[in-house]
Amino acid sequence: MNISIIGSGSWGTALAKVLADNSHQVILWGLDTSVAEEINKYHTNTSYLPELKLPENIKASNDLENSILLADIILIALPTKAIRSVMSGVHSFLSRKTRKPLLVHVSKGLEQETHMRVSQIISDVVPRELYQEIVVLSGPSHAEEVAREDITTITAASESLEAAQKIQACFMNHYFRVYTNTDVIGVELGAALKNIIALGAGILHGLGYGDNAKAALITRGLAEISRLGIEMGADPLTFAGLSGVGDLIVTCTSIHSRNWQAGNLLAQGYQPEEVTQKVRMVVEGMSTCRVAYELAQQYQVEMPITEGLYQVIYEKAELKEVMRQLMSRSGKQEASMAQHEEK
Amino acid sequence: MNISIIGSGSWGTALAKVLADNSHQVILWGLDTSVAEEINKYHTNTSYLPELKLPENIKASNDLENSILLADIILIALPTKAIRSVMSGVHSFLSRKTRKPLLVHVSKGLEQETHMRVSQIISDVVPRELYQEIVVLSGPSHAEEVAREDITTITAASESLEAAQKIQACFMNHYFRVYTNTDVIGVELGAALKNIIALGAGILHGLGYGDNAKAALITRGLAEISRLGIEMGADPLTFAGLSGVGDLIVTCTSIHSRNWQAGNLLAQGYQPEEVTQKVRMVVEGMSTCRVAYELAQQYQVEMPITEGLYQVIYEKAELKEVMRQLMSRSGKQEASMAQHEEK
Repeated sequence: MNISIIGSGSWGTALAKVLADNSHQVILWGLDTSVAEEINKYHTNTSYLPELKLPENIKASNDLENSILLADIILIALPTKAIRSVMSGVHSFLSRKTRKPLLVHVSKGLEQETHMRVSQIISDVVPRELYQEIVVLSGPSHAEEVAREDITTITAASESLEAAQKIQACFMNHYFRVYTNTDVIGVELGAALKNIIALGAGILHGLGYGDNAKAALITRGLAEISRLGIEMGADPLTFAGLSGVGDLIVTCTSIHSRNWQAGNLLAQGYQPEEVTQKVRMVVEGMSTCRVAYELAQQYQVEMPITEGLYQVIYEKAELKEVMRQLMSRSGKQEASMAQHEEK
Repeated sequence: MNISIIGSGSWGTALAKVLADNSHQVILWGLDTSVAEEINKYHTNTSYLPELKLPENIKASNDLENSILLADIILIALPTKAIRSVMSGVHSFLSRKTRKPLLVHVSKGLEQETHMRVSQIISDVVPRELYQEIVVLSGPSHAEEVAREDITTITAASESLEAAQKIQACFMNHYFRVYTNTDVIGVELGAALKNIIALGAGILHGLGYGDNAKAALITRGLAEISRLGIEMGADPLTFAGLSGVGDLIVTCTSIHSRNWQAGNLLAQGYQPEEVTQKVRMVVEGMSTCRVAYELAQQYQVEMPITEGLYQVIYEKAELKEVMRQLMSRSGKQEASMAQHEEK
């Protein structure tokens, strides 16, 4: 297969290695000419994955048009907020292709303002007749660990099971295991909303809470993500899977997560603006928290953890007071199929 | 309420504090006279929770008969393998009570040979007319953290929602939050089977695998626990709750877990017998793995992780070979409601 990866950051590069290891022809597209030169000359991408030696069947390119024209599969590895503009630009190249490509994305976020999931943004800007299907690839996956062939599992989700299976077959090997799923809504929501809970996990750490509290946050965070997801059309069992629980665990227990770090700084008394400056990268959890807060109101879903974090980030609420409120809520029941079927 | 706790180990003692903080009259029963003396004289239980100062409305006792006769609620905080003999002994005292007590247990295991869950063992030895209901209390909860009033959440499950709510009301306070559940099967299975996965998490750590692999193990471990649980009559959503995901996270990410430690030793090349000697405590995950393996065969459920661990522990299989087999299985689909409803 000819596979073009749009975005030569750490995740795009790690996935290029997986695909090249599986003998596909890979083009890794990025804006940065020096990155492309380094990859083509030395087979490394030291700015993103310093330890990795790339297979030689990966060609780096700065030519977006050519990358799109040659591809059977286009893998979009961009930050959520770049998706709309880049895919709009790609539009004209797609219309000149003789064979429709499969579009795959690996972004974990929701669009501010529109509240759209990433596959919705793509289908909003690319006409339906220009691609076969959209597949989202998501799960617990630090790029560094994939690069060193540590074991990784991930979900390929598409409304078309056949498309998901094609992607599964492309990526699977002895260190990278892919499961299929047809619940695109659940997979995309799990991937995006987990960053809110990671922010909370960082806060609990910063306040000195222990393992019980962190497990409580992750489990009850998962419960409220699931409640919102179900209202938005997701399958409740998806949230117990790789893009839900799996990604939550990695993001909430790794001190390398930016969202976790941001939460930890909030707990130390830094203001939200200061936190963004200190982390020096986009803290998705903070912006996703606003989107989730708005969605919770729109769908009338109780999301006490998201609401509490929203108050801390956007309404200058005291962390201690928010914690007190969370712990003094009335006693609740855990989710069951009976409740689910009543709806 | 008059509440007697049978078992003055660390968990029984921590729960005694929660109940005493909520102004209940608590008797903490144990066999050890020196522990009882220490509690009554100095309000400490230094062998189990050295840092804890106990409230004065906790009375320790070695008199099982009196402890049973005085109790509105009997909380059984014993290892799984002690449940049958102790509850058989308690039988005659129960028959002399004028008011039927609520029985609550906090044990996380399955009986070898019979494969019974703990509430099944209790109802096997105590006639139904001698108690109101059985409630199981389970979730992510290190006793040390409860003792220092760190935040903890837990599930109270009973076939009777009313009984679960009574226990919820008894225990809830500003640091201890209780959710109700009516899925006793799911809560008990989640609590017991998680120890198998903790063993696996220790192995992955010992072999040098990273966060992706651990999240994969926990998530796919959860998937196979759920598959077995569903066949045994559990609600699939229970496994996404506190006694499932919640307890899995605490047990698999804490190096203090005996099961995790045992797995870590297995990875270093120790034989299963040596591991048991080195850890010097019961490694529930190892015995539960055998029960789960037998249940998987009985219910014809695919449990590849449990089977792999069974081969390592009981059939001297090579860890590397088991890992290779797990990673070379054919591509699968994640669980969905549609699959669940098909059954």
